[in-house]
Order: sequence, then C-alpha cells, then structure tokens
Amino acid sequence: MILAQVIGTVVSTIKNPAFAGHKLLLCQPLDPAGQPNGAQRVAVDRVHAGIGDRVLLLDEGNGTRQILGGDAAGPIRTLVVGVVDAVELST
Amino acid sequence: MILAQVIGTVVSTIKNPAFAGHKLLLCQPLDPAGQPNGAQRVAVDRVHAGIGDRVLLLDEGNGTRQILGGDAAGPIRTLVVGVVDAVELST
Amino acid sequence: MILAQVIGTVVSTIKNPAFAGHKLLLCQPLDPAGQPNGAQRVAVDRVHAGIGDRVLLLDEGNGTRQILGGDAAGPIRTLVVGVVDAVELST
Amino acid sequence: MILAQVIGTVVSTIKNPAFAGHKLLLCQPLDPAGQPNGAQRVAVDRVHAGIGDRVLLLDEGNGTRQILGGDAAGPIRTLVVGVVDAVELST
Amino acid sequence: MILAQVIGTVVSTIKNPAFAGHKLLLCQPLDPAGQPNGAQRVAVDRVHAGIGDRVLLLDEGNGTRQILGGDAAGPIRTLVVGVVDAVELST
Repeated sequence: MILAQVIGTVVSTIKNPAFAGHKLLLCQPLDPAGQPNGAQRVAVDRVHAGIGDRVLLLDEGNGTRQILGGDAAGPIRTLVVGVVDAVELST
Repeated sequence: MILAQVIGTVVSTIKNPAFAGHKLLLCQPLDPAGQPNGAQRVAVDRVHAGIGDRVLLLDEGNGTRQILGGDAAGPIRTLVVGVVDAVELST
Repeated sequence: MILAQVIGTVVSTIKNPAFAGHKLLLCQPLDPAGQPNGAQRVAVDRVHAGIGDRVLLLDEGNGTRQILGGDAAGPIRTLVVGVVDAVELST
Repeated sequence: MILAQVIGTVVSTIKNPAFAGHKLLLCQPLDPAGQPNGAQRVAVDRVHAGIGDRVLLLDEGNGTRQILGGDAAGPIRTLVVGVVDAVELST
Repeated sequence: MILAQVIGTVVSTIKNPAFAGHKLLLCQPLDPAGQPNGAQRVAVDRVHAGIGDRVLLLDEGNGTRQILGGDAAGPIRTLVVGVVDAVELST
C-alpha cells in the first residue's frame, strides 16, 4: 500500500457501469515528509475520505475485487482503504 | 486507475486473434495540470473515446478479462474504461 | 522481493476492517549501499520488525492473501516477510 | 500493453524448461516519437517478429498463461503479441 | 522478464517459513550495454546462478507459485529462471 493525499475529484459521465455510484478521488502519493512522490492515481473511495485527507491507497485488482465483491468490481483496481491519522518517523 | 489522454491510434495487422475488432488507442498519462506524466500505454477502447479525449485507464489483466469475458481477453490488459468530463482540484 | 528499511509507523483509525490488529510499517526501499531507492511503501508486519530494521518486503496481493488466509487479507498487498541480517556483495 | 522495438535476442542454455523452443527477444519500449522510453524487457515471441520490428508487448503473467496454455507458461510473463504497422498521432 | 546480474546474497534468519532452504540473490537489472538499469530485486535462485552471472529474472507471483508449487511459494514472487549466455544486439 502507499501513502497519498486526496487532491481532487474526477467526474466521468461515459464510463463502465461498475463505476456507477462510486466517488472517484484523484490521489497524489506522498513521501514521509509529505511531499509529492510519483504519479497520481484515480481511486474509488471506500472510507468517506475528503479532499486534503492523507489516505492509505490499495492499487491492486484482486484485493479490490475481494472488497467490492467479484462481479461488482469490474474495472476498478484502486481503492482508498484508510484515512491516515499520523505517520510516526524514527528520529 | 490513471488519468490519460488519447493521443493516437495503433495499427497492427499481424497480431494475436484476441485483438481482432478492437480499436487500439495510444494513451498518454496526465498529471492534474494536464501535462504528460509517465510512459504511454496502448489500450483497447471500451467507451468510444476519440483522439484528444481525457480518459480513465485501467491497466490490469484480471479486471480486463472480467469486462471482456475471460477467454476473449487473451493478451489484452489495458482498457479505456471512462471518458473524463472534469477534474476538480482542491484550491 | 525488495530490500527496505523500516523508517516509521502509520496510524489509521478509519480503515478497512482487514487492517484491524495489524501493525502498519512505513518502509523505504534501499539500494545495496543502504541508500534510499524508490518510493516508500506501507506494509503489514509479519516478523515483528522494528524501526531501523532492514527487511525483506513482499509487494503482491496474491502471495499476501496466501499468507494471511484469503478472506482475511482483503485490501492488504504489502508485507514485511523477513528481517535481513546481512547483504553480502561481490567484490 | 506497450509499444516497443525488438533490439536483440537473448541466448540462455541453463533455464526453466518452460522456455524450451521459445525465441527470447530483447525489447526496448518506445515513446510516440520512436525514442527509447523505459527499461528493456525480455519477451517470448508469438508473432514471428524480427530485429528492428516495432511490436506490441504484453507484460502480464495471467494473460500470458491464457495464450500459452496454463502449465506450459511457467515462468513466462512477457510476450510479443503484435507487429505494429503504423502509429497515427493526432496533429 | 528482465535481464539482471547477480551482485550479492541476502542473509535472513527471521523470515517466513516459505524461504527456508532457498538461496536469496540480490540482482541488479541491466540495460543492453550491461549498465545498471533500475532498482535491485531480491530473488530466489532456481538455476544455481552465482555472483557475477547475467540472469533472466521473473518478477511475478502467479508464475512463481506455478514453478514452486502453490502452497510452497507463499511470499516468494521473484525468481532467477535462467542464466544468460549471450545478448545479441542488432547493429
């Protein structure tokens, strides 16, 4: 899994039916210092995350299918699976 | 999933039979500002996307097989699964 | 698998139930010289690793599901599967 | 899938039996302008591609196993699945 | 699959039982000119490769499980599956 921050939302009218009713969040992976770190992903929200939240991202289709229920997942492979309260670094 | 833009089409005569009848789109991943962001992918179109469209890309074989039907998917692992109308960023 | 170092812990209250009871470690991939090498991952600990330990990371959902038991794994795809005692390089 | 060019062949005597009888091609991913774009892959040829050909690469184990037949695929996860005749870019 | 060179060995006492009896090799991906090319992987040896050997790496869990036998593979996703004798480049 990776740490990321929700930076926006994605609106799509023409799409695979599996996305119906799912909120699409644009997420920016972060490094431990909170700086951007790699390419953004579009993820389906599963924990009512909002813009600005630091989150835990899962980017794998099989785990996603297990959470959403196999046939319902369809083309969804990226999920927000947790809201991060704190990252404690060694010092 | 990732945000991308359709930048071209790919023509291939000699290919695996699973590709027959599928349009192959060359897609450029984008960052939230709409700039190129990472390596291009060749994707099978599932939403009648056209050149210049911003799209939602799925790059995973198992989800692709679920959408196309198992045996029909064969070597296809990248699909255009949505046309993006808008990306709303936090400000 | 990749070499990494545990550099911190991640605290998340709102999360998928599959994470309950699992310690989340923030891990930094390392090169052979022990320098940072690529983006950090958040991993579930399976070997009682602590901050500062060099570890062996598995980043794949299917292997993770096999270790944790299918239904229990849910959204978990990254595990600490070993503590590294030594890396012996050719000279 | 990705666009690539066949730039060489790989000879391996000591190898997993699944590779017997397969030609191994060294492939360089390309950007739309035909420039090198990312790390090379070693792929099994399925379309009689030759050195210099632009090709369509599949880099996923499950799709590969479906094409080669499950048990026969073994450690093979990268295939040349098409020869590219043309890439038409938007202008 | 990718080309790599064995550059060292990894010693781990505390680890998942699936690793018992397996030699862990630290492998450096190479470009066609033999220069380092990307992040190192820790791989289980299946072809009696030694330090300095150029090898063919498989980095995918499902293929690995097929070779090692499903339950035995557990957290292993990276294997050395061939020793490379020669790379012949187009000129």
